[in-house]
Amino acid sequence: MNVGIVGLGLIGGCIGLELKANGHEVYGVARRQQTCDQALAVQAVDKANTELASLAPCEVVFVCTPIATIVSMVSQLAQVLSPTTVITDVASVKGALVRAATQQWPNFVGGHPMSGKSVAGIEAAERGLFLGNSYVITPVDGAESEDGERDGAELKTDESAIALVEQLAKELGSVLYRCTPAEHDRAVAWISHLPVMVSANLIRSAVSEPDDTVRQLAENLASSGFRDTSRVGGGTPELGLMMAQYNRAEVLRSLKRYQQSIATTIEQLEAKDWAGIESTLEATKAARTRFV
Amino acid sequence: MNVGIVGLGLIGGCIGLELKANGHEVYGVARRQQTCDQALAVQAVDKANTELASLAPCEVVFVCTPIATIVSMVSQLAQVLSPTTVITDVASVKGALVRAATQQWPNFVGGHPMSGKSVAGIEAAERGLFLGNSYVITPVDGAESEDGERDGAELKTDESAIALVEQLAKELGSVLYRCTPAEHDRAVAWISHLPVMVSANLIRSAVSEPDDTVRQLAENLASSGFRDTSRVGGGTPELGLMMAQYNRAEVLRSLKRYQQSIATTIEQLEAKDWAGIESTLEATKAARTRFV
Repeated sequence: MNVGIVGLGLIGGCIGLELKANGHEVYGVARRQQTCDQALAVQAVDKANTELASLAPCEVVFVCTPIATIVSMVSQLAQVLSPTTVITDVASVKGALVRAATQQWPNFVGGHPMSGKSVAGIEAAERGLFLGNSYVITPVDGAESEDGERDGAELKTDESAIALVEQLAKELGSVLYRCTPAEHDRAVAWISHLPVMVSANLIRSAVSEPDDTVRQLAENLASSGFRDTSRVGGGTPELGLMMAQYNRAEVLRSLKRYQQSIATTIEQLEAKDWAGIESTLEATKAARTRFV
Repeated sequence: MNVGIVGLGLIGGCIGLELKANGHEVYGVARRQQTCDQALAVQAVDKANTELASLAPCEVVFVCTPIATIVSMVSQLAQVLSPTTVITDVASVKGALVRAATQQWPNFVGGHPMSGKSVAGIEAAERGLFLGNSYVITPVDGAESEDGERDGAELKTDESAIALVEQLAKELGSVLYRCTPAEHDRAVAWISHLPVMVSANLIRSAVSEPDDTVRQLAENLASSGFRDTSRVGGGTPELGLMMAQYNRAEVLRSLKRYQQSIATTIEQLEAKDWAGIESTLEATKAARTRFV
């Protein structure tokens, strides 16, 4: 199959590596010629070009550019692709863009490969990044219009377009899930975006300790518990900001529920409700096994 | 040196293993004969007995029993030890017991080796548990009476008793810190006890999701971010309860500061204050490097 990839960073590069190795003809597009040359050098693509028009022969195109650019990228691609081409994306937030992209291109299929690394760029691309990890496909269905927009009610992602993206995601070694954009965004708020906020606020409140001796001691004594709980709050600021901006409603919803939960713990401590605290900790210990 | 250990669980067993290997004569006491036999079998002690009186020859005694029993254990030991013997403990909270124990035994030195494993008991004891980890010594000093008690103002831990415990802690391979019980409890609230509450509430709020499809999806999609942030909140309930009970004031203080921090994030999201969120995430990324 002729597969196009726009945006040859870590994710675009890794998709190219896998699909080229699997025998597909991979066409890459990057803004800079230097990135094109790198992608060719590491065998992530068969052809590389700075022009979107070079993707005209492709049956499917992965848009792997930053989330803010995806809808406009789809409308640019609409000028150069044949109408049967399927366009898919890899953004980590879906509600903000899947309907808009589908309005630009009926054969658009939203997708989210839940894989990453702490380093970005084509230099970091490697085989196996997607192996065993989730890949969520988020079609839209005219029957449900979760954002209440009249336009949205008409849209329904084509089943054969979904099947094509699912086939390629399977070739990456991913575990497939399918849900609506709204369900996706609500679920990732809980397991990915809320943890960043929870964790960042742990760091922010610890460094707010006004007693210098205590703060210094805390920094010295911190070990695995603090390290793990603070990890995602000490990650890339751009990623956290993107979650906040593009999944604002769901991040707010989960944070408000979390805030209520924290308030309950404070009430239990103030009331010395030891049975309540113990039963909470027993419940969270049991519940965690369903997530990990 | 003749070293006594009361309570032959994981920590008591590990202290015995290290100090016996270092040439000390180690006297162990456990409630059950079976535990005594196990401690002898794994070379954690030279002698083992179910009677506290067997510790009479010891120059130092480590109390490694549960936190709730420490002060009464010190008063029982006071009946059988010679007055020059130093008693120390290994509890993870200090304010609630160091002054009370010192009132029972002037040669008491509070201590907290910050090492552990997810499994308990003498069966899990091994060499190297303390190597490179913090060991906090928490003497009291008459000059400061942080709890305002008149009795406390008279107490001051003897320097030679502190030196003896510090010497043995060094032999365990630990990195030594010294601070007041109040400073210890405030610091560990930030880096150990608050993370448990933060993390448990993440789990509790995620499982409160009323939409079954979304909750199931969240459970399926959870990966390293949720796994790390939720780890300590899914730990032993008894440990979390102990922190809450014995360090209640400091856990409450840190939780209330944390609650304010969460409220600030909610305000920033509601106001779409992206610059504020980005600068917070930049600050937490930078601050975390001081802890880990």
